[in-house]
Amino acid sequence: MNGPHLRKGSRQPPSAPKGKLRLYSNRFCPYSQRVMLVLDAKKIAYDVVNINLYSKPDWYYDKSPFGKVPALELENGEVLYESLIIADYLDEKYKAHQLHSHDPLQKAKDKLLIEEFNRVVNTMYKALMGIGRPSLEEDEAVANGLGSFERELGNRGTPFYGGAKPGILDLMIWPWCERAEILKLFGNANLLKKDKYRKLLEWCKRMTHEPSVKRSMMDSDTHIKYLQSYRAGRPDYDMILNSTD
Amino acid sequence: MNGPHLRKGSRQPPSAPKGKLRLYSNRFCPYSQRVMLVLDAKKIAYDVVNINLYSKPDWYYDKSPFGKVPALELENGEVLYESLIIADYLDEKYKAHQLHSHDPLQKAKDKLLIEEFNRVVNTMYKALMGIGRPSLEEDEAVANGLGSFERELGNRGTPFYGGAKPGILDLMIWPWCERAEILKLFGNANLLKKDKYRKLLEWCKRMTHEPSVKRSMMDSDTHIKYLQSYRAGRPDYDMILNSTD
Repeated sequence: MNGPHLRKGSRQPPSAPKGKLRLYSNRFCPYSQRVMLVLDAKKIAYDVVNINLYSKPDWYYDKSPFGKVPALELENGEVLYESLIIADYLDEKYKAHQLHSHDPLQKAKDKLLIEEFNRVVNTMYKALMGIGRPSLEEDEAVANGLGSFERELGNRGTPFYGGAKPGILDLMIWPWCERAEILKLFGNANLLKKDKYRKLLEWCKRMTHEPSVKRSMMDSDTHIKYLQSYRAGRPDYDMILNSTD
Repeated sequence: MNGPHLRKGSRQPPSAPKGKLRLYSNRFCPYSQRVMLVLDAKKIAYDVVNINLYSKPDWYYDKSPFGKVPALELENGEVLYESLIIADYLDEKYKAHQLHSHDPLQKAKDKLLIEEFNRVVNTMYKALMGIGRPSLEEDEAVANGLGSFERELGNRGTPFYGGAKPGILDLMIWPWCERAEILKLFGNANLLKKDKYRKLLEWCKRMTHEPSVKRSMMDSDTHIKYLQSYRAGRPDYDMILNSTD
């Protein structure tokens, strides 16, 4: 997953080896990470082709209609995109290690929480990605949002939102939680006050110990270095090129 | 479904009668109509409480966290929102008249087409809702989008996207197709050229003959009158008050 990010002019790589799915990804894209987390949690075999989002290869638009990552190429050559649609597909197609609840109501509620988390994160992320420090209102919206996730974990009373193991909600929100430390540098450090989000922070620690989460995980220093390069207009996608696999 | 739209200051209605779901809706909201279409296609018993979106009752925020419609109140008092999440929930909980494909890949592809249709419609709708006539680029994006739906119907070779009966894709895109005639008035009439979208127009006609589609259907004159009232800043939600049930 740490291969070079292919750019305009690069040659199209050969198909994935037989028996493997192909994930078109970007090492620093949280939506791509969502799909890696699902593939790894379900122990599905896949390889990764990284795409430079600033300079996309022309052939990539034939793979993914809007040139977006993540995109998942199936063994029959068909390509799915949109992280949540891919995640649901994989969970339905590969029955082992089911991530969604079997209960339709719980499943729907988890999906609503994923949407809610998205709203919180969009507020936070836009500010982080260079439009400046979050406003007081944005800070409050984020704090309220995170507060509801803290309570939810308490209400469920399980180590993970999904129960004894991470489920769909855990995995779909994790990429942004992995990046939470960058808030201390660029956002409002108060947001991550330990006493306010005790359960959420314990959950974060538990997540970092999960083998399937570890596979795609990067440390905060790497996330911060990437964010700095992004904000400087020169996103350094290849900074951990081939460093681990 | 044609009851008065409750506004700020109105009293909260009693719960739905036992054995019925409660849909909080707005008669002219296409997202609410999506849920009605699913409920009617699956023959699930429900009643409707209409909400005035310009002047929402305070109590409504206790039902739907963001005050949005549609919201579906279950028999246990829990409330789901977001039309696609509600639709998926209903299709999983009530097995009869299944709307999603049993094949995970076809299901994922249908979901991507629903997203694609959303993109087309957002371009079209924003222009229609008062920001002015669509630009040439917008017209082209809409025409390309509709063209892919025309081809898709040809590729599937069935009366409906879902096969012999309307499936999830048919129902999720229908509310905007029902409103297509308003394009002739406010948009570019060329968009609906008969020879370009022959299959799509035949599909539209077939949809209007489906009993479950007929239930929530309104004619083009009503849609146009509503749109005119909306654009004038006084949306006349109650124009068909109790006219049919």
